[in-house]
Amino acid sequence: MNLSSAHPLSDGRTTRSPLVRALRGERPDSIPVWFMRQAGRSLPEYLAAREGVAMLDSCLDPALASEITLQPVRRHQVDAGIFFSDIVVPLRLADVDVDIAPGVGPVLGEPVRTPADVDRLLEKTLTDEALQPIRDAVALTVAELGSTPLIGFAGAPFTLAAYMVEGRPSRDHLGARRMMHTDPESWARLTTWAADVTGTFLRAQVLAGTSAAQLFDSWAGSLSLADYVAHVAPSSARALTHVQDLPVPVIHFGTGTGHLLPAMRDVGADVVGVDYRTPLDEANAMLGGTTPLQGNIDPALLGAPWPVLEAHVRDVVERGRTAPAHVVNLGHGVPPDTDPTVLTRVVELVHSLPA
Amino acid sequence: MNLSSAHPLSDGRTTRSPLVRALRGERPDSIPVWFMRQAGRSLPEYLAAREGVAMLDSCLDPALASEITLQPVRRHQVDAGIFFSDIVVPLRLADVDVDIAPGVGPVLGEPVRTPADVDRLLEKTLTDEALQPIRDAVALTVAELGSTPLIGFAGAPFTLAAYMVEGRPSRDHLGARRMMHTDPESWARLTTWAADVTGTFLRAQVLAGTSAAQLFDSWAGSLSLADYVAHVAPSSARALTHVQDLPVPVIHFGTGTGHLLPAMRDVGADVVGVDYRTPLDEANAMLGGTTPLQGNIDPALLGAPWPVLEAHVRDVVERGRTAPAHVVNLGHGVPPDTDPTVLTRVVELVHSLPA
Repeated sequence: MNLSSAHPLSDGRTTRSPLVRALRGERPDSIPVWFMRQAGRSLPEYLAAREGVAMLDSCLDPALASEITLQPVRRHQVDAGIFFSDIVVPLRLADVDVDIAPGVGPVLGEPVRTPADVDRLLEKTLTDEALQPIRDAVALTVAELGSTPLIGFAGAPFTLAAYMVEGRPSRDHLGARRMMHTDPESWARLTTWAADVTGTFLRAQVLAGTSAAQLFDSWAGSLSLADYVAHVAPSSARALTHVQDLPVPVIHFGTGTGHLLPAMRDVGADVVGVDYRTPLDEANAMLGGTTPLQGNIDPALLGAPWPVLEAHVRDVVERGRTAPAHVVNLGHGVPPDTDPTVLTRVVELVHSLPA
Repeated sequence: MNLSSAHPLSDGRTTRSPLVRALRGERPDSIPVWFMRQAGRSLPEYLAAREGVAMLDSCLDPALASEITLQPVRRHQVDAGIFFSDIVVPLRLADVDVDIAPGVGPVLGEPVRTPADVDRLLEKTLTDEALQPIRDAVALTVAELGSTPLIGFAGAPFTLAAYMVEGRPSRDHLGARRMMHTDPESWARLTTWAADVTGTFLRAQVLAGTSAAQLFDSWAGSLSLADYVAHVAPSSARALTHVQDLPVPVIHFGTGTGHLLPAMRDVGADVVGVDYRTPLDEANAMLGGTTPLQGNIDPALLGAPWPVLEAHVRDVVERGRTAPAHVVNLGHGVPPDTDPTVLTRVVELVHSLPA
């Protein structure tokens, strides 16, 4: 399936952007940079826009989600917008009882732990109609962004399943990791459902106008390589089949995944996001030198004196030059207490460096 | 300095135990096994003993700490006791305002973030007198344990510093990781102080009768190798100098540390603990085939049906045979909801396998 002729990648608006070129493994004229969680709590204009609006409600209000997506692009002159959403948004749209509790994270009304729980979950579907606010928000945003690409956003099935099994954020995801071994059939049904829901959510964003897509597997780093390959990779690959026929590059990211990078590429990603723990030259070597990389500024250093941060950013860029292409980003999301002027300065620095 | 003639390693009580032999790289007649957090919430007798007693108070009551340490040895017939304590106990004994909030973890009254905060911290010392309840608890315990060795316990300086900087548990330890780059001088003073306090705490346990010692760096996995080597390894090495002259083997453990195993050995550990993410044959290869290993049953599988868990334990033991010696353990602590009869069965299985 092709994108519509009005899509930014079809009408050429974003095709030659530094971000899209780098994600395709080309060498653009300037080094592209954006920040995971750039739209969020580090920006006073975000806090003002969100005032009195619950997190998931803000994701489902097209005008508000679009405004929040655009704020960091205006402010920092980053090379991409990242669609403002949350990985549990497609669950909510599929009528799963989920909310985001402030200071806690996603909380499920009914955790999914038994075969019967999975049966009940599988009665829920994500309809095309439910996705209308998502399409509207993307369309509003890409109209404003012009030649700056928008990146679509979805959570990987394992991370979604971990929230559904635990019922809330957890450190080690013991329940989910236990279920994949204890009841592999229920695990497969749960993650297949999650793959189709999150893949459908991502596809809707791409068709509505995003020029790239990122799959976040926030908790994949809790897995051994063997467990990842046997119990997680199949559903992540399935999620990506939903956008495989679309000509947009796909980025795949998780934290603490230094031991999983090739496996995370091999589910069907074009670009691998690298957290701050693994230097990019090492990541590139692990990946055989053929995969564009994204990352990996240490978010802890955003609060360091500028000379310390500058030296670190320059080091990240230098190591990134070993890869076929490199999109500068953080190795994890922007911490809420980050001074946003520092992010702007990082963008200026990256753009001043030779491509 | 030698151990006293009444020490279990001097009078021979534990010298030939499977645990001590394996930790020294020998091949004992049976495979030793114990569990991190074996003394704790998975045992009804622990919940009964702790009823109405705050966590840190229980650590500082010699009779109670000893009883709690002994409970899992009696019940499971494990090859070692692990001294019941908490990594923040030496901070409390040095008069730092710290408590363990139920459901949260260690909470500091005054986080340590500025040079002035570090100045104030450095006025505090851990006196020999303050360690008397620790010595008493260890002495009571080793008298009861007979030929079963007791393992001493202390937190590594980075993990202690992470709690002190953040003031409470955190996911990414941004404050501590920022401080090591932003104010390396204060960071060095803070971690040097922590190294001496935790090293003194560990030494007191060893001199009072433990036959081994384990340094826990719970949060080391949040670090890149470069940061670990530059900003953490020196203080961990300093902590271990406090027991270096004593003839007890030292185990060093952290989670998510697959990329740090050789560096964690090279601070002065004899044995490396491996979390559940890295198969032991891979860990052994990373370490050059000369280091005894401890680990690495996945705690998530303690809740799996017995055939699944049994196959996993057998696989861990087989991979452990590639190393010079192997102490079976979990790859992280016992989850609170673990059925203790499962742990007993794991011990029986491990003891039934050929050494």
